[in-house]
Amino acid sequence: MPDSAAYDWIAFDADDTLWHNEPLYQATQENFRKMLLPFHSAEWIDERLLATEMRNLQHFGYGIKAFTLSMIETAIELTEGRIAASEIGRIVDWGQEMLRTPVELLEGVEETIRALARDWRLMLLTKGDLLDQERKLAGSGLGDYFQALEVVAEKSVPTYRSLLKRHGVAPERFLMVGNSLRSDILPLVEMGAVAIHVPYAVTWSHEQVAEADLVGKKFYQIERISDLIPWLAGG
Amino acid sequence: MPDSAAYDWIAFDADDTLWHNEPLYQATQENFRKMLLPFHSAEWIDERLLATEMRNLQHFGYGIKAFTLSMIETAIELTEGRIAASEIGRIVDWGQEMLRTPVELLEGVEETIRALARDWRLMLLTKGDLLDQERKLAGSGLGDYFQALEVVAEKSVPTYRSLLKRHGVAPERFLMVGNSLRSDILPLVEMGAVAIHVPYAVTWSHEQVAEADLVGKKFYQIERISDLIPWLAGG
Repeated sequence: MPDSAAYDWIAFDADDTLWHNEPLYQATQENFRKMLLPFHSAEWIDERLLATEMRNLQHFGYGIKAFTLSMIETAIELTEGRIAASEIGRIVDWGQEMLRTPVELLEGVEETIRALARDWRLMLLTKGDLLDQERKLAGSGLGDYFQALEVVAEKSVPTYRSLLKRHGVAPERFLMVGNSLRSDILPLVEMGAVAIHVPYAVTWSHEQVAEADLVGKKFYQIERISDLIPWLAGG
Repeated sequence: MPDSAAYDWIAFDADDTLWHNEPLYQATQENFRKMLLPFHSAEWIDERLLATEMRNLQHFGYGIKAFTLSMIETAIELTEGRIAASEIGRIVDWGQEMLRTPVELLEGVEETIRALARDWRLMLLTKGDLLDQERKLAGSGLGDYFQALEVVAEKSVPTYRSLLKRHGVAPERFLMVGNSLRSDILPLVEMGAVAIHVPYAVTWSHEQVAEADLVGKKFYQIERISDLIPWLAGG
């Protein structure tokens, strides 16, 4: 019997914590690279795309539409406008295919979330396109287990603070579980909440954190989501 | 002294209710039309763009990024791929300019919202891109007057129902103010909430409602936002 009094909410990141996400971006970027290889090296294409994404982040935010627009912009820039419109049309198609790709849960997620929902209040806490995250939650079959869905523009300390305030929860009674050290773990540690890192196989460059930034930071790590149940039981 | 006991929340739509929005889209669409006039008539360009937007709505949702991607797709389709990549680059630039355009409040908004915030709990309730709506709220200078910001993917009866449930408010104690009959008024009327229509000079085709759909629907109409204060005072 877990000690349900320890936390008021357990919040879960969604992409690459509950369901696969980054491989979909990487597969699309692989197609993008192939399209532009006649013009540039793979390394330069990747580097310019990331630079475009970072430049656009403050206006576009995260998600598939932002990624698609950044691919289009990069393709025009890297070919100095020589790319055919039909190729740009293919990039738009890729974006639409990504938005139609069915959700694929990580192993153990369904059983773990179902079990936890009996004893705890669960929140889905994610960034990206609101509509796309709602679609994925609906498609995941997990919708009924979560008592709150929060889609935020950026997972920063001010955002988390205002969210916890809105839900009337003290940081030490808030447990966050996610795969991104940068977005799901470090801001929570900074504000005195409890954070559990569940690494995913691949991490987007932007979400990567230098090891030096982790020194002295107190958070937990589990290997897979199903380990959360024994962790909560103090095992 | 208004009767603050009449409603638990007064919710405001944002785009074209508190600040100008549709003219920005129309100005961009005017540029889009000029770009494609060598290929097609203005009417056909408008018709095809709207058709693309409607087809993409379920995956893209509302907002500037969705609009930009739909313009790109339409431009490629209408020119059968003959448009230059540099022209597509201009469309991407327009999207970025739209996202950087400062917020311009409608007349009387600042005074009205400031006055109402003394006696009522105010909510901003809008659809579109989360990040862009947050940016506009921050830029509007109205942020401190609203106790809640809700960005939803679609303003439908199920969305409003779940939102009211989450805030623990009965429909008859919820007052919604907005310019779109389709999004801000009719769903509220259907669920027994109170709705005030404040018409805006121009309405996007998708938000327009046939007169027949209004027959027998009980809602209020005011000419400008500042009329809300006497309306609430029962004047």
